[in-house]
Amino acid sequence: MKMNFCSAFFFLLVSLYPLPQILAKESNGHISVVILGATGDLARKYLWQGFFHHYMEQVASGNSFSFYGGALAEADQGNPALFEILKGLRCPSDVDQQKCALLKEQFLKLSQYRQLRTAEQYSALHEEINTQLKQEELVEAGRLFYLSVPAFAYVEIAERINSSCRPTTGGWLRVVLEKPFGHDYDSAQSLAMDLDKFLRKDEMYRIDHYLGKQAVAQILPFRHENAKLLYPLWNQHHVEKVEIVLKETLDVKGRAQFYNQYGVIQDVIQNHLTEILMLIAMEIPYNANDPQEVLGKKLKLYTNLQDLSRRSAVVGQYQNFNSEVKAELNKTVDYVSNTATFAGVAVYIENVQWDGVPFLLTSGKSLDERVGYARIVFRNPTFCVQNEEAMHCKLRQVIFYFGHGSLQYPAILVSKSLFKPILPSGWKEVTEYPELTLLGQPLSEYYIYTPVTQSEPYTILISLIFQGKHDSFVSTENLLASWKFWSPLLHSLSLHMPRLYPGGNDNNNFLDFELKGRELSFIQEPVVISSNIQDEISVDSFQITQGKYRQNEMVSAWAEELISRLSADLQKVAEESVRNSGQFHMALSGGSTPIALFQRLALHHYTFPWKKTHFWMVDERCVPLDDPGSNFKTLHDYLLQYIKVPYYNIHPMPVYLNQRLCVEEDSGAEAYEKEILKLVNDTSFDFILLGVGDDGHTASLFRNSKFEMHKDKLVALTESPSKPHQRMSLTFSAINKAKNVAVLITGKAKHEMITQLSRVKDDAKKWPITAVKPTSGKLIWYIDYDALLG
Amino acid sequence: MKMNFCSAFFFLLVSLYPLPQILAKESNGHISVVILGATGDLARKYLWQGFFHHYMEQVASGNSFSFYGGALAEADQGNPALFEILKGLRCPSDVDQQKCALLKEQFLKLSQYRQLRTAEQYSALHEEINTQLKQEELVEAGRLFYLSVPAFAYVEIAERINSSCRPTTGGWLRVVLEKPFGHDYDSAQSLAMDLDKFLRKDEMYRIDHYLGKQAVAQILPFRHENAKLLYPLWNQHHVEKVEIVLKETLDVKGRAQFYNQYGVIQDVIQNHLTEILMLIAMEIPYNANDPQEVLGKKLKLYTNLQDLSRRSAVVGQYQNFNSEVKAELNKTVDYVSNTATFAGVAVYIENVQWDGVPFLLTSGKSLDERVGYARIVFRNPTFCVQNEEAMHCKLRQVIFYFGHGSLQYPAILVSKSLFKPILPSGWKEVTEYPELTLLGQPLSEYYIYTPVTQSEPYTILISLIFQGKHDSFVSTENLLASWKFWSPLLHSLSLHMPRLYPGGNDNNNFLDFELKGRELSFIQEPVVISSNIQDEISVDSFQITQGKYRQNEMVSAWAEELISRLSADLQKVAEESVRNSGQFHMALSGGSTPIALFQRLALHHYTFPWKKTHFWMVDERCVPLDDPGSNFKTLHDYLLQYIKVPYYNIHPMPVYLNQRLCVEEDSGAEAYEKEILKLVNDTSFDFILLGVGDDGHTASLFRNSKFEMHKDKLVALTESPSKPHQRMSLTFSAINKAKNVAVLITGKAKHEMITQLSRVKDDAKKWPITAVKPTSGKLIWYIDYDALLG
Repeated sequence: MKMNFCSAFFFLLVSLYPLPQILAKESNGHISVVILGATGDLARKYLWQGFFHHYMEQVASGNSFSFYGGALAEADQGNPALFEILKGLRCPSDVDQQKCALLKEQFLKLSQYRQLRTAEQYSALHEEINTQLKQEELVEAGRLFYLSVPAFAYVEIAERINSSCRPTTGGWLRVVLEKPFGHDYDSAQSLAMDLDKFLRKDEMYRIDHYLGKQAVAQILPFRHENAKLLYPLWNQHHVEKVEIVLKETLDVKGRAQFYNQYGVIQDVIQNHLTEILMLIAMEIPYNANDPQEVLGKKLKLYTNLQDLSRRSAVVGQYQNFNSEVKAELNKTVDYVSNTATFAGVAVYIENVQWDGVPFLLTSGKSLDERVGYARIVFRNPTFCVQNEEAMHCKLRQVIFYFGHGSLQYPAILVSKSLFKPILPSGWKEVTEYPELTLLGQPLSEYYIYTPVTQSEPYTILISLIFQGKHDSFVSTENLLASWKFWSPLLHSLSLHMPRLYPGGNDNNNFLDFELKGRELSFIQEPVVISSNIQDEISVDSFQITQGKYRQNEMVSAWAEELISRLSADLQKVAEESVRNSGQFHMALSGGSTPIALFQRLALHHYTFPWKKTHFWMVDERCVPLDDPGSNFKTLHDYLLQYIKVPYYNIHPMPVYLNQRLCVEEDSGAEAYEKEILKLVNDTSFDFILLGVGDDGHTASLFRNSKFEMHKDKLVALTESPSKPHQRMSLTFSAINKAKNVAVLITGKAKHEMITQLSRVKDDAKKWPITAVKPTSGKLIWYIDYDALLG
Repeated sequence: MKMNFCSAFFFLLVSLYPLPQILAKESNGHISVVILGATGDLARKYLWQGFFHHYMEQVASGNSFSFYGGALAEADQGNPALFEILKGLRCPSDVDQQKCALLKEQFLKLSQYRQLRTAEQYSALHEEINTQLKQEELVEAGRLFYLSVPAFAYVEIAERINSSCRPTTGGWLRVVLEKPFGHDYDSAQSLAMDLDKFLRKDEMYRIDHYLGKQAVAQILPFRHENAKLLYPLWNQHHVEKVEIVLKETLDVKGRAQFYNQYGVIQDVIQNHLTEILMLIAMEIPYNANDPQEVLGKKLKLYTNLQDLSRRSAVVGQYQNFNSEVKAELNKTVDYVSNTATFAGVAVYIENVQWDGVPFLLTSGKSLDERVGYARIVFRNPTFCVQNEEAMHCKLRQVIFYFGHGSLQYPAILVSKSLFKPILPSGWKEVTEYPELTLLGQPLSEYYIYTPVTQSEPYTILISLIFQGKHDSFVSTENLLASWKFWSPLLHSLSLHMPRLYPGGNDNNNFLDFELKGRELSFIQEPVVISSNIQDEISVDSFQITQGKYRQNEMVSAWAEELISRLSADLQKVAEESVRNSGQFHMALSGGSTPIALFQRLALHHYTFPWKKTHFWMVDERCVPLDDPGSNFKTLHDYLLQYIKVPYYNIHPMPVYLNQRLCVEEDSGAEAYEKEILKLVNDTSFDFILLGVGDDGHTASLFRNSKFEMHKDKLVALTESPSKPHQRMSLTFSAINKAKNVAVLITGKAKHEMITQLSRVKDDAKKWPITAVKPTSGKLIWYIDYDALLG
């Protein structure tokens, strides 16, 4: 049954030498390697080479090996295909030719092709491994399955390995998986759960081959070794921006099926670039070899990432992509793909270290050059009085250069204006500088380090798998955290058409983008570059409409646009109030509707006059202020905690007095009224934000209440039909004195109410919201299309 | 009596032409100009030329003029000196020679020298003016006195003008003053008050000739005209830094007396550079010609300037300065001047627009070149995907270039990467670019505008004085606001020796400085560059000593150093607490002592884990929380308002409940204790900051109190011997449970108490502070040298 290529290969060798001495050594453990998809692209280019390399290094280690190349084809097809691959294996340049030939001969002898399609074929493989172990009296060290197959096959293969290919003699099982691991959070989670049924977490090795790139693998060690000089600089006070870039010249020809389904974010940003971001921004683990600690620090960082919105990214698609997809996938003439082949994303980290520093992740197909790097640009705090040519006056950056591009080798570059870093072991300093400017500086302005020997990422990662080291692989938690972060953006981008770009050098500056606040936009207007149908889909098809609703002004748009308009209007009112009176008093509602507004204000309104703004509550549930149900807590968590407001300007409702909630005798409502009287001119708020419940209530003013009992009171205890029943609320008297009232209504669930409300007469008992009629102020309805149109 | 130079000058002219027609016109108002110090440097170089220029322009206006050159010398000395000056007057290049000669002839005819020393001589001048008016039947328009004399003479001259030289016929009086206007706040204020006795505010014109420089005068109009594009960028979110620079190559020879008394900050930074800072950073006035509005906006900005500390500046003195001073002023051999001839200062503005943007003001004598400019450097928010050579990828700056330097003409430069500004009227665009790099960019990357005609600042300002326009002059309020801002820095710098620098090109990068947080320091270590005695005075002679006090650790230093050490220690404790428990609970004392600590924490501890820090009060006065006497208000105003802390982490003591202060039944102390129990692990604060009163009390725990009544309570109502008597305070039980207690004591007034305290035994009744003995925590005394050594 067993086939090997030794005989075939033997004729190619002039083998007058005895087998090297190393081979004489006893095996102290046998390892079986099974590469599934053994004749595929990845296996041909990298995997066999990686395993051969590992074999060369480990041949003296005392382990013995068998290599099985598995695929779906029958042996008469698979055999020659695998032979072709193995014939092409190369030794590193420092191994002499004869030794190389011998090692190759040996490796071929240990390698064979297997058809692995049916459960029986997996069982047969298992039997054969066991037989060999028995015959050769070998102890089994373990079995390594490398799944270089489409992701849809993972679960079935995992099941087969689990049911019939586990080592029965105490050796380990390691199963290596290649991306994609899902295309969004749900699919990734479901894949992870399915795999969990058959494999233990520590048996899985998810490869992100970028983690095997030498300049990437060096990020954490570099940060650690240079911590003394780097740590004081590695934060928002010194770093201006971080750019993580992966540019490709290739298009997707031949991979259209895969690529069209995934796109640039799923292909390289969610995984490679995000992993690099983690390595740059995470806390340095005390023990970088402890996968649990590394994972813990990464997960902590994930929780600090600011949520992405549609405007956190710009996306593009190269002009020919659609026709390539149509041709390759036999799509109809009118097929339009909105898959992005280019993306720029601004990621922000909400922690003390990185607050406010943009991490710009950029990648694309069909660009002008192939290059990958991560670049940390520092502010230069130096003022050079006379000679600006001195090194310390120059640009300051640290660059992890993954390879290709104008440098053509992996490197770490540190501006001489910063400091001379410690040389990593296994690396050398480059001291000859060709006339070349790299990322804003001539090479001579950098300290440049490069690995003594360049290694393929797969070779490095395969070696780590053999060593059982998990820290350079993607754990399930890590994977899911990443998808959780990226999925909302992917979802909202999926509704839009990316900008088309010509491709290659023709792109010129067409894809350049810029930060506005924390949002990205292309700096050039889109132009029609082909007559394809998709050009007619406007890049930004959002529109705001204005009209009337219940005799008052109404602004309507899709939710995101509506919120951005409302927040802009709010800022205008605030600035005007501050100009007129030096202060701005606004009262805000609770519930989930205003959260989007709070977030937008927190993240995009840097020039809002916060210091002069007073925050009042429209209403409050009678729960402790830090209760998750508290309206104030919502305001705090989504807005207040992000901005600098004087403590004195924050006015939560006093629902908790004398260690109890909303007791009439504690006079909380009266106390709040007194505070309003003391601070708000004429008790006329500059701005009040209201919502409307499905039943037409607003603030905490509910149907069938005796509003007349409130008389001229500004604040009252009220009762809600739903829990918690007790509430404190501004009254209609207070609301109708306001200078500006905005009623914000979003979501399909409100559609029916909106429709009804448009028809009814004023009737406070039945429809409390209809009693909102500012005496001399202005009322504007902000209603999104979902609520308006259903 | 009257002398004029016409006859003498006449022979120099070939005057075959009749007097121009313009002279035939009737005078509709006569103006008498009196230049005091008429033969001095400034008058020779600029003033006569300025008045001549104005005369040429106004000769057709219907006004008639007399010019009196006044000085202390007798006529036989003053006469020829003035004649020499007038002979050298020049016309602008666009006036033809013959016309120029005629005008000059006429100007000389109207000009005469006067000795003006005694009161009688002023009276005589007054008589003569009146006589002339009468004889020639002229209506008096006004009298202009230009005081180009040492500042000490101002008051006497003002008195003489007031008592005997005021126009008696209804014309105006304008008195022009040249800096210096004092050397610090007190002297400036006293000078202003003295002048106020004799002159109305609107009669005084304080000249800052930088306001007459064309590129400076254009700052506000430029900002106004380009507001649409500039306003969105002109703030902290887009401006990286602002540099205001005035470099000189000259030394102070010939001016040593003046300069040694003033120094670089008083000479040019307090006035010229500060005025330019105002023009760049102030709100744009609606009406730039309304001096009241301009002044109001400037004063508002002054209130927003962050106080300067000694570390806000770096100062230097060129190596030969001391010997020049000694020679010129006949000082003894061992004389050492600590006057600064170079300074770099980082100014910060605490408002929404400019928060966090460094304004670097730099000036010095004996540098490598003569140049002046203000440079606004913007962040570039653009990511250039392919072609980094595109203009929008380049540096972005706006430069107001005052003159000299490599450009040699006044200009406004705007990077093409920003926008094309509107051409100011009277200016032209420069479109030919020599191969020159200016401030980081080749000239070809700028839009460059320059005035069509270059004018001397004095010419411009003299014309404005004739027009009675005050907005380009320095009002008393403006002057005092500026001195108020600069005086504390000047005072603290006066205690130190500036760094010596070689001068000229030899300085190379020796004066380069850098920002660390908001503090400045030279980037190079000082080196001994001469054997002068002053080199032996250490640049930074502050020292921290450590020892024991009352059996506990003591840290001692001068106040500023002590505070910086305490805040560093505090941050260490905070970081450790957050590492261990995720939180940091600190309780702070009130009073004035900790203010310096609060300020330092607010401004220099950006990496403090504020988000995890809980603020508790050690004690509180029973006053409303926003009362100026409230301890919480001190904490808020000096620290909390500057940092982002979750609202939930701020714990003022509940001294105001149920609309009344510290009533036993309202159980405020119990409520605070409950809050501590709920949030603080084991009720053990991570850090407590205490002070000690002159009488040995600490927190609000006073002499002769029955502390035993507190039992295990953590918080208690207490009584103070001084007002307000009612207090709330942590008890000794609470304090002694803390993990770290710091006792901060500063100032000479505490010396006696410190001495006594070092001798007494523990006695809580007499010396409450002696009852502070953390059970298992650490106690450190932070005592400054004033308190320790008296």
